[in-house]
Amino acid sequence: MKKKINVAVVGTGAVGQALLQVLAERDFPVAGLKVLATKRSAGKKVEFKGEEYTIEETAPDSFSGVHLALFAGGEASRLFAPAAVKEGAVVIDNSSSFRLDPQVPLVVPEVNPEDVKWHKGIIANPNCSTIQLVVALKPLYDAAGIERVIISTYQAVSGAGQEAVEELKLQSREVLEGRPVTAAVFPWPIAFNCLPHIDVFQPNGYTREEMKMVHETRKIMKDENLKISATAVRVPVFVGHCEAVHVETREELSVEEVREIFRRAPGVVLMDDPEKKLYPLPIQVAGKDEVYIGRLRKDLAVDRGLSMWVVADNLRKGAATNAVQIAELLLKESLL
Amino acid sequence: MKKKINVAVVGTGAVGQALLQVLAERDFPVAGLKVLATKRSAGKKVEFKGEEYTIEETAPDSFSGVHLALFAGGEASRLFAPAAVKEGAVVIDNSSSFRLDPQVPLVVPEVNPEDVKWHKGIIANPNCSTIQLVVALKPLYDAAGIERVIISTYQAVSGAGQEAVEELKLQSREVLEGRPVTAAVFPWPIAFNCLPHIDVFQPNGYTREEMKMVHETRKIMKDENLKISATAVRVPVFVGHCEAVHVETREELSVEEVREIFRRAPGVVLMDDPEKKLYPLPIQVAGKDEVYIGRLRKDLAVDRGLSMWVVADNLRKGAATNAVQIAELLLKESLL
Repeated sequence: MKKKINVAVVGTGAVGQALLQVLAERDFPVAGLKVLATKRSAGKKVEFKGEEYTIEETAPDSFSGVHLALFAGGEASRLFAPAAVKEGAVVIDNSSSFRLDPQVPLVVPEVNPEDVKWHKGIIANPNCSTIQLVVALKPLYDAAGIERVIISTYQAVSGAGQEAVEELKLQSREVLEGRPVTAAVFPWPIAFNCLPHIDVFQPNGYTREEMKMVHETRKIMKDENLKISATAVRVPVFVGHCEAVHVETREELSVEEVREIFRRAPGVVLMDDPEKKLYPLPIQVAGKDEVYIGRLRKDLAVDRGLSMWVVADNLRKGAATNAVQIAELLLKESLL
Repeated sequence: MKKKINVAVVGTGAVGQALLQVLAERDFPVAGLKVLATKRSAGKKVEFKGEEYTIEETAPDSFSGVHLALFAGGEASRLFAPAAVKEGAVVIDNSSSFRLDPQVPLVVPEVNPEDVKWHKGIIANPNCSTIQLVVALKPLYDAAGIERVIISTYQAVSGAGQEAVEELKLQSREVLEGRPVTAAVFPWPIAFNCLPHIDVFQPNGYTREEMKMVHETRKIMKDENLKISATAVRVPVFVGHCEAVHVETREELSVEEVREIFRRAPGVVLMDDPEKKLYPLPIQVAGKDEVYIGRLRKDLAVDRGLSMWVVADNLRKGAATNAVQIAELLLKESLL
């Protein structure tokens, strides 16, 4: 008989909602479900597979009897993940709190599935920009090695939560109607603008978002010497992160070889036929679970260089889908 | 006595309007003014320094008595620039028709002012993305040499003309109101989206826009071996192109040295104080004539690498302002 799991989803914002949706879509064997959030949301109702659940306020004793706790991110992880582990739950955490902790595996199932095995209660889900990047890099790394990666991102506002989505809608209306624009979630207006500022600035001039891509990619790929440099930019898009990625491989790969590699790569959809106007776009990739790759071409500036355009749904593969895939992996390995 | 110039402006779209505005703002010594366009616009009125001018349809004999013809771009350049030269006018052309012609100088006044001297009637104005790039690269090139440049662009819709601006407005309203989206100017909807497709695709997998950045930069910088690779992306911004630029210099430069270089560089405004949320944004740089540079930092992936964020108004420094600056240079050199 298929094992049934008691699941807690912690957080009911954009990622929390995506977690419930992905659990339902993939028919994860949920026995009992708890939906937890802050006091502000407690008492509200959410739907899961046609049934209504009342949101409860998260507390240290919320996790009694829970086998799997999926944390959507934010403060709650630091506050309650250890309590969930103490109660015997396996935590899959989408916050940045534990990602670089050497005691915590950081997992993208297409890249380092083996790392779920050594978890000590918490498995971290990487940053959205990192997940789609490593899904694209890993097959190239395995085929030819990687010397250096340069990434420029085009990140959707939903990465900053549901309030950011509302802010983009409101500001867009304000601009179109010629009214003054109010900025609350982002440091500057995001409507019809580009903000090269995601998360806080570090002393080296990079943002924390940019450094997450460096450190998390190295940890997932198990190569502390991998050379990575990123520019992370918020753009006025609702869902779907894009990345312009320039990769320098150790051994030369032809574009045709790379195409073949991506055709066989897990979790990748090659969408690359410019003559037919086929390349991944955020509005098309929104709602999808795969990482879409297009605009494949030789980098004109270096030998062994490749350029590509990588797009994924930041709420799904960049967050909820990856977390649920980790849970599926745990089930498969009988670790749940 | 200051010389007075008979000027023709050819084109009345976004760039044509910017040309008239910049000529007025900079008090260019206009004696007579002709405003020329296609039949569709002929008969309409435009204003210049408080006076009304009637738009005339461009014809080969439109340029009689004209000293300076400023072409906004498009078909008109190929059709009428030679006729204007025959009539004795100096043509400053914003189209791509003549940019790579070895008989035609391609000029950014901050970078290669000396090239105006050898013109044979036509001087080409570079592509918008190229202009802001070379203004940022030249001071680094002079100080330390450049090995390699990787650019990802975030380009405003106004680069595709006034119709593109209207399309972004219309589509944004359609999305916000939940109506179906109509795409006419761009290959896919641009509202709340990113399009890695500007101009047509070439056999090497790059777009013409991306290759313009390669070829035009090499011509302006007089270095056919300069290694450049670009990804050009249209974003839902009205005015202001952004570029994430990764530069590998020949000799090492510290960030502080680069700051000092940019503080003294012509046409550059250094806007780089992340702690105070200061970095250039398209909505702030729109309407400005300079190239704004921020997010200066060492590239983490290579020695002698620098990363920066370069923003300029694509209609002004990226088109009209640069053209008028070329005209000012011609005046100063007594070539007009």
